[in-house]
Amino acid sequence: MNTSEFRRRGKEMVDYVANYMEGIEGRQVYPDVEPGYLRPLIPATAPQEPDTFEDIINDVEKIIMPGVTHWHSPYFFAYFPTASSYPAMLADMLCGAIGCIGFSWAASPACTELETVMMDWLGKMLELPKAFLAEKAGEGGGVIQGSASEATLVALLAARTKVIHRLQAASPELTQAAIMEKLVAYSSDQAHSSVERAGLIGGVKLKAIPSDGNFAMRASALQEALERDKAAGLIPFFVVATLGTTTCCSFDSLLEVGPICNKEDMWLHVDAAYAGSAFICPEFRHLLNGVEFADSFNFNPHKWLLVNFDCSAMWVKKRTDLTGAFRLDPTYLKHSHQDSGLITDYRHWQIPLGRRFRSLKMWFVFRMYGVKGLQAYIRKHVQLSHEFESLVRQDPRFEICVEVILGLVCFRLKGSNKVNEALLQRINSAKKIHLVPCHLRDKFVLRFAICSRTVESAHVQRAWEHIKELAADVLRAERE
Amino acid sequence: MNTSEFRRRGKEMVDYVANYMEGIEGRQVYPDVEPGYLRPLIPATAPQEPDTFEDIINDVEKIIMPGVTHWHSPYFFAYFPTASSYPAMLADMLCGAIGCIGFSWAASPACTELETVMMDWLGKMLELPKAFLAEKAGEGGGVIQGSASEATLVALLAARTKVIHRLQAASPELTQAAIMEKLVAYSSDQAHSSVERAGLIGGVKLKAIPSDGNFAMRASALQEALERDKAAGLIPFFVVATLGTTTCCSFDSLLEVGPICNKEDMWLHVDAAYAGSAFICPEFRHLLNGVEFADSFNFNPHKWLLVNFDCSAMWVKKRTDLTGAFRLDPTYLKHSHQDSGLITDYRHWQIPLGRRFRSLKMWFVFRMYGVKGLQAYIRKHVQLSHEFESLVRQDPRFEICVEVILGLVCFRLKGSNKVNEALLQRINSAKKIHLVPCHLRDKFVLRFAICSRTVESAHVQRAWEHIKELAADVLRAERE
Repeated sequence: MNTSEFRRRGKEMVDYVANYMEGIEGRQVYPDVEPGYLRPLIPATAPQEPDTFEDIINDVEKIIMPGVTHWHSPYFFAYFPTASSYPAMLADMLCGAIGCIGFSWAASPACTELETVMMDWLGKMLELPKAFLAEKAGEGGGVIQGSASEATLVALLAARTKVIHRLQAASPELTQAAIMEKLVAYSSDQAHSSVERAGLIGGVKLKAIPSDGNFAMRASALQEALERDKAAGLIPFFVVATLGTTTCCSFDSLLEVGPICNKEDMWLHVDAAYAGSAFICPEFRHLLNGVEFADSFNFNPHKWLLVNFDCSAMWVKKRTDLTGAFRLDPTYLKHSHQDSGLITDYRHWQIPLGRRFRSLKMWFVFRMYGVKGLQAYIRKHVQLSHEFESLVRQDPRFEICVEVILGLVCFRLKGSNKVNEALLQRINSAKKIHLVPCHLRDKFVLRFAICSRTVESAHVQRAWEHIKELAADVLRAERE
Repeated sequence: MNTSEFRRRGKEMVDYVANYMEGIEGRQVYPDVEPGYLRPLIPATAPQEPDTFEDIINDVEKIIMPGVTHWHSPYFFAYFPTASSYPAMLADMLCGAIGCIGFSWAASPACTELETVMMDWLGKMLELPKAFLAEKAGEGGGVIQGSASEATLVALLAARTKVIHRLQAASPELTQAAIMEKLVAYSSDQAHSSVERAGLIGGVKLKAIPSDGNFAMRASALQEALERDKAAGLIPFFVVATLGTTTCCSFDSLLEVGPICNKEDMWLHVDAAYAGSAFICPEFRHLLNGVEFADSFNFNPHKWLLVNFDCSAMWVKKRTDLTGAFRLDPTYLKHSHQDSGLITDYRHWQIPLGRRFRSLKMWFVFRMYGVKGLQAYIRKHVQLSHEFESLVRQDPRFEICVEVILGLVCFRLKGSNKVNEALLQRINSAKKIHLVPCHLRDKFVLRFAICSRTVESAHVQRAWEHIKELAADVLRAERE
């Protein structure tokens, strides 16, 4: 494909994308296909001679779209939102064209420098403590990771390296293995599965702290685990506090947990993957109070801040904690500026070596929405979730399971898990809307997450009418 | 930005991208900026009110482009290539619009299923042994990772879990820490720094095996290390063999190393990050001989197969080895099909949870080039590197340092490291072309990698004329 054909096909693709977004409401949100549907539809091997662009774009509608779960449909209320906006898509086109691999400053200075400044912009929007900003001469700073899972893992590895160095400095005879055997990390029993995974990967124990009645990790439970483990000779070194859990958007008590971490010299990582975007609104900023006790903080603009996946924002108070865990410098990656102290080689901050020019998406989105536009977007979603909440509360057959704080409503039919499982099954079989469940203690609960950029009150109302009808069917079937 | 503005701006961006690619030869390949150049050029905080698209696109030329290293300039000969093609860019636009997060089959069946089939297509192009393919009922299969670093880490973690389970099955009293302390992995002393990093992250010893005169890992050196380590009570469990090292594109002897790994029950991971793309050509396929001994194999279509970053292709013979290392199933990620045996939840194959619809890029590129088009592309690059090699060989002041097999030429001025460092410094200060160096044993060597999709013989000739002129200056300065 030469450049003039790209000009033509690129513009056709822009229209295809625009048509897809405009017409998404008319597509069934969850597909009808069964596992294995795709393989019989395409050849067993790649073609020897080129196919035409027409062939391919026709196959998109015939082969791909029937198997797509439409995350940006206004009837998609599953998981958490994943961001989608036109400015981010435009930036991604530019990112693809520049196509640099920004592993070091020299590999494309603009890629590294825009990222550092955009992370400062975003940090300031959240009113993060100054210690997390790079600014001109700060010790902290931000980096774009691919996912919150990677941020948690990177934090855990940095904490692991730090505690090993500290203990070996005091007792040089200690081997790394002898220390690692005793290391123990903590998170709430409501934390995301990626936290447990980070522990597995890092080869350290990860213990779940029982959350309280509001599904929050509190000081008392953490303190109790700590004392027990220290008495057993273990070495507590790392705590993940979650702001806005995946199950029910509960908030660990950072103001309680933070001081304990500082006192006990444990690394505190704060995971606000979903909720973090809301902290740009002054009325939600209090939910972040206590972040001043943290060593690292992470949230996903690619969830709820209109920056298309992937863009997971992570800040640390001391950059050297991250780079110390990873730094390796082969000749082919050295460049003349790297020891100047002024520059950042982001490869030392992350698991992969390569990285795309992802800060362009932040730059385009922040500028084209403005902070006020982004705040309005968050507020609209929170308002829609409260609207859904009040609909549920008006129906005596239903209950709200957890306080609704942001864009997630956890609800269920009063009654057995069985009846709620039956309700969810009917909802997802009807495929007019899409939801996923969670377990809260022993209760099977339905999650209604405000997701799409284009979701409006009318969609929420229609979704609720639909849920009510199916609930009536389920309850009728149960009585019969 | 509404949809009709996106239609307009999207088309403008397509033209901007096309203009950039068409005019890239006229841009200086390496930027003039100094560290810290960007921060003073933009505001310290995000704007409260929206900026216009015109403001932003104007700033791209004013603020971003002056700091870009142009990886797709035909005068860029540094590192290894990173892929760029119009079909991949078109696919990325579609990927951004669909914007699904394909962590499970249910999260978007097409995203998972196209990936499995594309990895089979690509595996067949390489003539990978059938055991690596998923096909209808295979135990193996492929997955797209973000980078070769992640593939190496995932393989190491799977191998670690497997050996721990095996040893604990035999001796249930052994703790994980007691085993990990004794685990030892191996790679050539020429392996990429990401291998050492995977060892650091996984908390296991990683030993460098001295390579031979051709910078290859051979049986004898590996066997020697093995015997010594086993005698010392260590447990060898993992070997990384590299096909096409980053320093000089040397090849470990897979046919020698493979059988040792199988006999000693060590996981063999083959890293062909750069060279792998060449194996689609029958005349280069012999370089992959011995892959039948491997447990996992990885290369980067995002380097040399025209699929824009990121797309790192990894295959395993037993999917359960990967999923066994990672599997965690919280309720909100469960779906009704997952235990059917027919489906794949790729989140169990990788470090992050989220994943984009990256297989669209493979589908577009493989179909729009055809296998023959891709082979022609590889062959052209190899031919250009041989052209450069013969120019170097015709000049008695220079030497070729390693046999040229694919698209990389390692060369230097006969003489001291100092004179070669001076030459590289002049080349990269002149900024007409861009190169990076490497160290081969104690020699400072220049790497000339054929990178750009649009590089032609004329560019190689001009680059050589330029290098010769600067070499004359360096040699003159040395004599004075």
